[in-house]
Amino acid sequence: MNTTAKLLLHCPDRPGILAEITNFITINGGNIIYIDQFVDRMENVFFGRIEWELKGFMIPRDKILDYFNTLYVKKYNMDLRLYFSDEKPRMAIFVSKMSHCLYDMLARYTAGEWDVDIPIIISNHPDMQPAAKRFGIPYRVFPITKENKLEQEKAEMELLRELDIDFIVLARYMQVISEQMIEEYPNRIINIHHSFLPAFVGAKPYHAAFERGVKIIGATSHYVTNDLDAGPIIEQDVVRITHKDTPQDLVNKGKDLEKIVLSRAVQKHIERKVLAYKNKTVLFS
Amino acid sequence: MNTTAKLLLHCPDRPGILAEITNFITINGGNIIYIDQFVDRMENVFFGRIEWELKGFMIPRDKILDYFNTLYVKKYNMDLRLYFSDEKPRMAIFVSKMSHCLYDMLARYTAGEWDVDIPIIISNHPDMQPAAKRFGIPYRVFPITKENKLEQEKAEMELLRELDIDFIVLARYMQVISEQMIEEYPNRIINIHHSFLPAFVGAKPYHAAFERGVKIIGATSHYVTNDLDAGPIIEQDVVRITHKDTPQDLVNKGKDLEKIVLSRAVQKHIERKVLAYKNKTVLFS
Amino acid sequence: MNTTAKLLLHCPDRPGILAEITNFITINGGNIIYIDQFVDRMENVFFGRIEWELKGFMIPRDKILDYFNTLYVKKYNMDLRLYFSDEKPRMAIFVSKMSHCLYDMLARYTAGEWDVDIPIIISNHPDMQPAAKRFGIPYRVFPITKENKLEQEKAEMELLRELDIDFIVLARYMQVISEQMIEEYPNRIINIHHSFLPAFVGAKPYHAAFERGVKIIGATSHYVTNDLDAGPIIEQDVVRITHKDTPQDLVNKGKDLEKIVLSRAVQKHIERKVLAYKNKTVLFS
Amino acid sequence: MNTTAKLLLHCPDRPGILAEITNFITINGGNIIYIDQFVDRMENVFFGRIEWELKGFMIPRDKILDYFNTLYVKKYNMDLRLYFSDEKPRMAIFVSKMSHCLYDMLARYTAGEWDVDIPIIISNHPDMQPAAKRFGIPYRVFPITKENKLEQEKAEMELLRELDIDFIVLARYMQVISEQMIEEYPNRIINIHHSFLPAFVGAKPYHAAFERGVKIIGATSHYVTNDLDAGPIIEQDVVRITHKDTPQDLVNKGKDLEKIVLSRAVQKHIERKVLAYKNKTVLFS
Repeated sequence: MNTTAKLLLHCPDRPGILAEITNFITINGGNIIYIDQFVDRMENVFFGRIEWELKGFMIPRDKILDYFNTLYVKKYNMDLRLYFSDEKPRMAIFVSKMSHCLYDMLARYTAGEWDVDIPIIISNHPDMQPAAKRFGIPYRVFPITKENKLEQEKAEMELLRELDIDFIVLARYMQVISEQMIEEYPNRIINIHHSFLPAFVGAKPYHAAFERGVKIIGATSHYVTNDLDAGPIIEQDVVRITHKDTPQDLVNKGKDLEKIVLSRAVQKHIERKVLAYKNKTVLFS
Repeated sequence: MNTTAKLLLHCPDRPGILAEITNFITINGGNIIYIDQFVDRMENVFFGRIEWELKGFMIPRDKILDYFNTLYVKKYNMDLRLYFSDEKPRMAIFVSKMSHCLYDMLARYTAGEWDVDIPIIISNHPDMQPAAKRFGIPYRVFPITKENKLEQEKAEMELLRELDIDFIVLARYMQVISEQMIEEYPNRIINIHHSFLPAFVGAKPYHAAFERGVKIIGATSHYVTNDLDAGPIIEQDVVRITHKDTPQDLVNKGKDLEKIVLSRAVQKHIERKVLAYKNKTVLFS
Repeated sequence: MNTTAKLLLHCPDRPGILAEITNFITINGGNIIYIDQFVDRMENVFFGRIEWELKGFMIPRDKILDYFNTLYVKKYNMDLRLYFSDEKPRMAIFVSKMSHCLYDMLARYTAGEWDVDIPIIISNHPDMQPAAKRFGIPYRVFPITKENKLEQEKAEMELLRELDIDFIVLARYMQVISEQMIEEYPNRIINIHHSFLPAFVGAKPYHAAFERGVKIIGATSHYVTNDLDAGPIIEQDVVRITHKDTPQDLVNKGKDLEKIVLSRAVQKHIERKVLAYKNKTVLFS
Repeated sequence: MNTTAKLLLHCPDRPGILAEITNFITINGGNIIYIDQFVDRMENVFFGRIEWELKGFMIPRDKILDYFNTLYVKKYNMDLRLYFSDEKPRMAIFVSKMSHCLYDMLARYTAGEWDVDIPIIISNHPDMQPAAKRFGIPYRVFPITKENKLEQEKAEMELLRELDIDFIVLARYMQVISEQMIEEYPNRIINIHHSFLPAFVGAKPYHAAFERGVKIIGATSHYVTNDLDAGPIIEQDVVRITHKDTPQDLVNKGKDLEKIVLSRAVQKHIERKVLAYKNKTVLFS
């Protein structure tokens, strides 16, 4: 595999943006292997993702961002991000006591399905220590109480900085994340909520779903914002239930949903195919 | 096809209920062709549906209900309903201006898919008159204003009584039904709501779904109660959407969902396979 | 709505194709409102669909195709098609005796959901005459026997030519179409097959599915080619079944699948969003 | 949890079977907590599953089977099986080189989701040894060649007998199982095939699906019989794909399907809720 550059951008829509950029890349010897674009005609915003091979590209890797900034950012009032395929994102996993999402991600990681590094698992409980040990990943416990929460989060953030963590995955981490951490990782904390949001926000959604008598349950993966369970949705899926299912049956059926939905969202994030804009996401193909 | 009796019942669970009733039917020459049962172990309630052929059954058709009442209702504190397969339920359709659910039901009816009579279509607008005419079904307009609502509903109810209507289907009827009509048709008014309830209760759910940035939309068919969009759910289904879909795209994709979900619910109701209990439904197989 | 031009194209992939064409449209005053593109990297083929407003576009409508032919077709070895949004495609429906797909399409057509004309319904049986009459569409019967088949098809084709038909929809038309007609309408005859192809090719797929004991059934809409049920697939969908479902239950459940899958395929075709290539389809967003 | 007895049975349908058996259990002090039954009216076969608490049941546990045999087997020409909830089934996993199904099952097992013992993992390759070790499960390699196949299977079967294995799960085990082993474990070898059977039987189904241009791919879990990929289907599921997906994308998307479908089938088997009859399965609720 050749190393590629991945450019994600959005800006007010104007004719010719994509033509100009793809033209520029092509003229400078870049072999484009991926283009996806979307125009939100209600907001009049252009969104694009372009990927091209660095081999043969005449602009040195460490100057590419400069070039794009100079050429396009001001002209188009553009917001852009550049990634390289050989730079693995570094991901931290937060867990509490449930193992299904954790194991699902560790199995993918170990099998080499994900191009990512996982240098740390953080928890408020010791329960998942053995799972982390099985896969050889450091595990750190930060017990959380009402009193020590902000302090403990600060210690966590220090550790995350030390480890140069790019993004955080909350794999059924049963704590609300504070503003301070959300601000440090904007649109870079991925949560799994065990309902079809916006139905059943908050605690015990499976029990609420049982009480309401719904015929389908869901799971939702989203970026964490300061509004509980209200951040930009990345992925959702559902499964059919019947009147025969008890709340415990919903919990069990939901586990498979949660792990698949979360892992799909994490994978899209790792591939740099998610662009959060206002309170929604554009998912490139 | 032989005529069958269909018995739906629920009562506090005790050992032997089903054995006793199936035994009774068998001993009296009834050939049981269908049994489905469910025990809600949290509420401790037994639910059952039994269907048997009248041919060879020794108890005369018009005495069967008496027998069951005498033998079981008091003993088991049972709630039971008896239907016969040769008595077609009579259904009224209420519409406003949208045709997709209406046409879907009329097509099934005309093709003989549903064992039902549809003697009337009622609307607050004249728009669907041509559709009714196409299928030869009487159409009556009762324009609704804030002032005349209760009065008009009374006129509708009178017409429904004249026509001996058993149940009502709201096929995107854009009016809230008043308490008086709900009380006359308890668990016999079927609505289609164009969202995955309890998400997006009330008006303009597709626009709300668009604003929230969900990745899946849904439709919900439920019995109408006095709480808006909160009655017992009969059927739900969903369809995937993407960031590319506009609110109008959601409306269009939703139409197919709505008509299929509503028709599935109506069919289950016609087959006497729905038992509403508290705010949920048991759907027999 | 402004009138738009819709350009669909494919050619061997080379850098800069999309840039060049979008550039050309933009420079000449065309406001592009839609771009979708796809590169098949295994076959090295570029596929694109571009839509732009004719208002303000400097090249006269009747010269656009010339320009593209001159500028790109030879240079890129390109295959291209041009449509205008104000030219409604003309569609013929072929039916036999089942009404569900027919009614579903006529309801959409009548409600104005589809930007299409339906000047004729053709059948080998008189059964659907009343349905056609309900919606005011001419209905012609061409009874088919082994002996008269080619001759009758010729008569049908003459009628289709007279009526200037663009494409044909087989709405559960229970006849194999002959080579002569397929050649006249390449990738312009849309069929619905009542199975999840390639499973259960040929007759009685629901009975075959029942015999095999599958847990899910499907329906497939595809362009008709000379290989039975083997043409390019446009759309598929499935529904869950259980051991309780009889072959007749499968037929009933399948009807909803068939009509939705067929209508989705027809809609994509009407919108000019399907590009058949070899034995597959590219479905633009 | 009280210990329960689980009775699965099938026999030619006659009136009163269920009434008689539930009556018998109730009279003898058994508290029935689960009944599910199904009558195949085409084959005229009755299928039932009854579960009741042993506490208070007057027939001693080790005599129950005798009683049922004496009372019902001959009378009804019945085939029955009896299980107790405190006897964990013993399951062997066969793998080759892929880890996704294996990890999914080991994670469930370790989390206590499944009431099963897994005393051995068997493979024709050493690759999954580290995965087995992570979860502390013995791993034995039996390399298979055309020449040694029958002999190696005999050694495997000896090991399985020693370990008192009840059933085998082929978790992407890339070997055809021989008749001798299938005969020893009739309807007790569960395979996962990576297609929507009966489409794409045999090797490389994802590549075949890609070539055919399907819009949906599937996975199928079934009992192994002597006909390749043609045994009784336990569970199937599907996922949507597009023209953008490469064969490798299908492989990746398929992995999630495979593991979920296989695990659902294994769970149903463990719960004693699958009854294979002829070439199909009845799945109790």
